[in-house]
Amino acid sequence: MRIKITFSYDGTNFFGYQVQPGLRTVQEELERAVSYLNGQKPTTTVASGRTDKGVHALGQVAHFDLDKEIPCNKIKLGLNSLLPDDIYVLQVEAVNDCFHARYSALRKTYIYKINQGHFDPLSRFFCYQLQKSLDVSLMREASKLFLGEHDFRSFVDSEDIRENTTRTVYDIDFFEEGEQLTISFCGNGFMKYQVRNMVGALVLVGLYQKSISELSLLLASRSRKKAWKASPTCGLYLKDIVYEEKKNS
Amino acid sequence: MRIKITFSYDGTNFFGYQVQPGLRTVQEELERAVSYLNGQKPTTTVASGRTDKGVHALGQVAHFDLDKEIPCNKIKLGLNSLLPDDIYVLQVEAVNDCFHARYSALRKTYIYKINQGHFDPLSRFFCYQLQKSLDVSLMREASKLFLGEHDFRSFVDSEDIRENTTRTVYDIDFFEEGEQLTISFCGNGFMKYQVRNMVGALVLVGLYQKSISELSLLLASRSRKKAWKASPTCGLYLKDIVYEEKKNS
Repeated sequence: MRIKITFSYDGTNFFGYQVQPGLRTVQEELERAVSYLNGQKPTTTVASGRTDKGVHALGQVAHFDLDKEIPCNKIKLGLNSLLPDDIYVLQVEAVNDCFHARYSALRKTYIYKINQGHFDPLSRFFCYQLQKSLDVSLMREASKLFLGEHDFRSFVDSEDIRENTTRTVYDIDFFEEGEQLTISFCGNGFMKYQVRNMVGALVLVGLYQKSISELSLLLASRSRKKAWKASPTCGLYLKDIVYEEKKNS
Repeated sequence: MRIKITFSYDGTNFFGYQVQPGLRTVQEELERAVSYLNGQKPTTTVASGRTDKGVHALGQVAHFDLDKEIPCNKIKLGLNSLLPDDIYVLQVEAVNDCFHARYSALRKTYIYKINQGHFDPLSRFFCYQLQKSLDVSLMREASKLFLGEHDFRSFVDSEDIRENTTRTVYDIDFFEEGEQLTISFCGNGFMKYQVRNMVGALVLVGLYQKSISELSLLLASRSRKKAWKASPTCGLYLKDIVYEEKKNS
């Protein structure tokens, strides 16, 4: 039976999502628990995508196949009893065999948190400690450049020219609460460093260090070599993923 | 010159506030930084009170004496450059020699955070993960028993009968945001475990496991032996301390 799980994690003490020999990763911890549940048989899991070292998830999704039928509520209890405290399974669903956590994804939302106030030791792993005031109206205006389909090559890490770096951004929103600014990005997919590079660029605009027209030129340049500075990983959260309804049930 | 500092810390990786040989404590880190600033001379600091292992502070206060005059803004910058990332000095003030962080305190406010929703790995060190719904109206009603001057012996850790366990609670307030409940306690002082024992008692009322009249009897019994269960340390924050205006300037 194919199982879809939705789970949350604190990325602080992981070396990212993907398995890396000798390093603690989310995937390694998850597969250890899933394999135990699957009669101790080594079992691979497929996630919607990777997250980098220090990046958090509120609603990451993965799928895997179990050899025997286990009720979803028992899978949830079992995984949560086997997993360490920095990962928590929120939801377990039995899905059709054609469901694929990565390829069936239609939309993803990331959020990014910025603290404009004084350094806060309590949120230092959960928020970019910028400690400067931002012109949020100007950032909102600048963010409109990202909406729609664009070649985001200037905002990714890879210099691999074969890779298709065109993505569609559906929505960018800004929420202010006291001195904390949260920016949400919804799109059909985001590449490595893309959200952090977009946030980094918006921050430079919000600090009046770069103008909206400079940002426009950066986007049009389609060159990674021209990129500005990415914002730190600790402010980034994979919030949720929307899948096709039909494949999901 | 006598200096008053207001500072914040993440209590997660400290064995409490007070110096304990061989263990990492807030006071030890603070005194290392202050002593360095004070010409490498070992310098004692006096805080408003201790906090236990895992308890956080948003506005702890301490005082110390420096041998030479240093501008307050330089002290702030210096301490923050010397201190580890889980402590941050918010404010530095030069005060009269009669100011005493512990004895001049008039009122203290603690807050306590409870997560009624699913286990949240991201807030596991910053919130009590109760994972059950509380009857907050009933808790609010029950909390009125604590208001005013009472002998809180049933809510403290000590069996030392010489100690005066009478304290005055000025205000208790409840704030709900989604599934997070925050309770604030303002009083003339709180003893070791007092807030956590009061929260633990209110939670039992909110879960209908104890009644308001049972809570009333517990308070009246004035016996530590009858105490219910204290809530975990991770949800507790020392929020702020109010001092006499005159002594402070």
